[in-house]
Amino acid sequence: MKFLQYNENGHIKLAVKREDCVIPLQSIDENLPQDMKGLILKGRAVLDELRQKISAYDGSTLALDEIEFALPVGDPERFLCLGLNYVDHAKEGNNALPEHPAIFMRTPTSLAAHQQPLLLPKVNNKLDYEAELLVVIGKQAKFLTKDNALDAVWGYSLFNDGSVRPYQRWSTQWTMGKNFDQTGGFGPWIVTPDELPPGAQGLKIEMRLNGQVMQHANTNDMVFDVVTTLVQISECMTLQPGDCIAMGTPSGVGYPRNPPVFLQADDIAEVEVEGIGILKNGIALEA
Amino acid sequence: MKFLQYNENGHIKLAVKREDCVIPLQSIDENLPQDMKGLILKGRAVLDELRQKISAYDGSTLALDEIEFALPVGDPERFLCLGLNYVDHAKEGNNALPEHPAIFMRTPTSLAAHQQPLLLPKVNNKLDYEAELLVVIGKQAKFLTKDNALDAVWGYSLFNDGSVRPYQRWSTQWTMGKNFDQTGGFGPWIVTPDELPPGAQGLKIEMRLNGQVMQHANTNDMVFDVVTTLVQISECMTLQPGDCIAMGTPSGVGYPRNPPVFLQADDIAEVEVEGIGILKNGIALEA
Repeated sequence: MKFLQYNENGHIKLAVKREDCVIPLQSIDENLPQDMKGLILKGRAVLDELRQKISAYDGSTLALDEIEFALPVGDPERFLCLGLNYVDHAKEGNNALPEHPAIFMRTPTSLAAHQQPLLLPKVNNKLDYEAELLVVIGKQAKFLTKDNALDAVWGYSLFNDGSVRPYQRWSTQWTMGKNFDQTGGFGPWIVTPDELPPGAQGLKIEMRLNGQVMQHANTNDMVFDVVTTLVQISECMTLQPGDCIAMGTPSGVGYPRNPPVFLQADDIAEVEVEGIGILKNGIALEA
Repeated sequence: MKFLQYNENGHIKLAVKREDCVIPLQSIDENLPQDMKGLILKGRAVLDELRQKISAYDGSTLALDEIEFALPVGDPERFLCLGLNYVDHAKEGNNALPEHPAIFMRTPTSLAAHQQPLLLPKVNNKLDYEAELLVVIGKQAKFLTKDNALDAVWGYSLFNDGSVRPYQRWSTQWTMGKNFDQTGGFGPWIVTPDELPPGAQGLKIEMRLNGQVMQHANTNDMVFDVVTTLVQISECMTLQPGDCIAMGTPSGVGYPRNPPVFLQADDIAEVEVEGIGILKNGIALEA
């Protein structure tokens, strides 16, 4: 199943995708939570019931191309990102392979929903793209093991880890370049794990800029796969339902190219992972 | 004024300190917000009214040593921390002085209130202390200038940036070592800026471990002062009411000492900044 959030008259609503339509969850069962975090907190058991109700549903729907997408998780308490997690990407920037996941955080104000523009900052025009697989946590989890790590995953989504490169490098810590307002695309929906291989392994991942393929790799090329990442992070911090972990980007980003490529106003950036879908964001100047 | 939050029967309450007592804000005016974020959102104007009501108040109070302190801001959306922001601290770790603030983030689950224990992680016993001044933001702010930056400050507090050193160094990014559950002391209260010099400059800052002075410096020794830090951060991200910025620690931390010093179970760590107060945390083993 693919769950998404959308804006309707200033309110966030929860829906499930069915072909080229979406069904508001309220229409299926008005007792269900009406936001993603609430649904996640219900646990996985509710999903099995839902699957049957969704396939049996014959009420009204909304066209997928008519809704205004919202962030799949509106205000994730933890939004963790891995850097240098694909061998070829580490090489293209002349970086050594990390021995452990290199992790930074993004704040919710740095995110943009599917079809919302990514903002080209006033103070710097070197905004780069990064196609990523994103993991959404489903339950409180500490000290996960290789055997149970995937039980903590509620679903998978897509991320474009928009990075203002000079600010990413202005100190040893990448935080500032990764946290400009509305620079990280997140969406369009969250796919439940039953629709994908375990750990979302073996999936084609691609980034297209104005239709041209800029990054093309496979999620198998990660240095730290989803299981290993969850085991290592949960040694340190207790993961919570709704936490997001962006799994890093493959080679082909803009800054090491010759000449370098950066996002420009009116560009269209698309992130695609096989079996999940396409995250699409235009680029606009910061007001 | 010094505002704090405390736990009463599982509910967070807001209070103001007066000598060795606290007055619940509800007792002063039941129409006031009953949590710190709500009070901050009211803006500074409400503080002038409050000051008069507090000095005129002659109702019941609670003894300061009988309340259970809670985090001054319970769930800050952004908790930013500066690294290497005192010249001598950068030198003691053989680090170059940064050209811009080196910024990382902490997640709310990594925080501990005044008098709550800091947890010594199961997986690693090299938890180090770091005494810091902390800035609490009072209003939405982007593109602050040197002239108006301090208008965005709601108050100042204390922070012990507890750091699990081997995890801080396990990649180039410090995030993991800075985000173990309940390792960062924050409190006991927020002091409004009228009680301190502009930008909290020229204040003695000290860290004591079991009564012994381990760090002793002055907030004037910062590489990037509060004004400069706010100007630089707000180039990138829109600051919001309740955001917290920890201003980095002076020299004297434990890891570069010979022999190294790390926090141990039953230790007492105290952070003091002149004019603000003392943040005190015991150390306990993670369960």
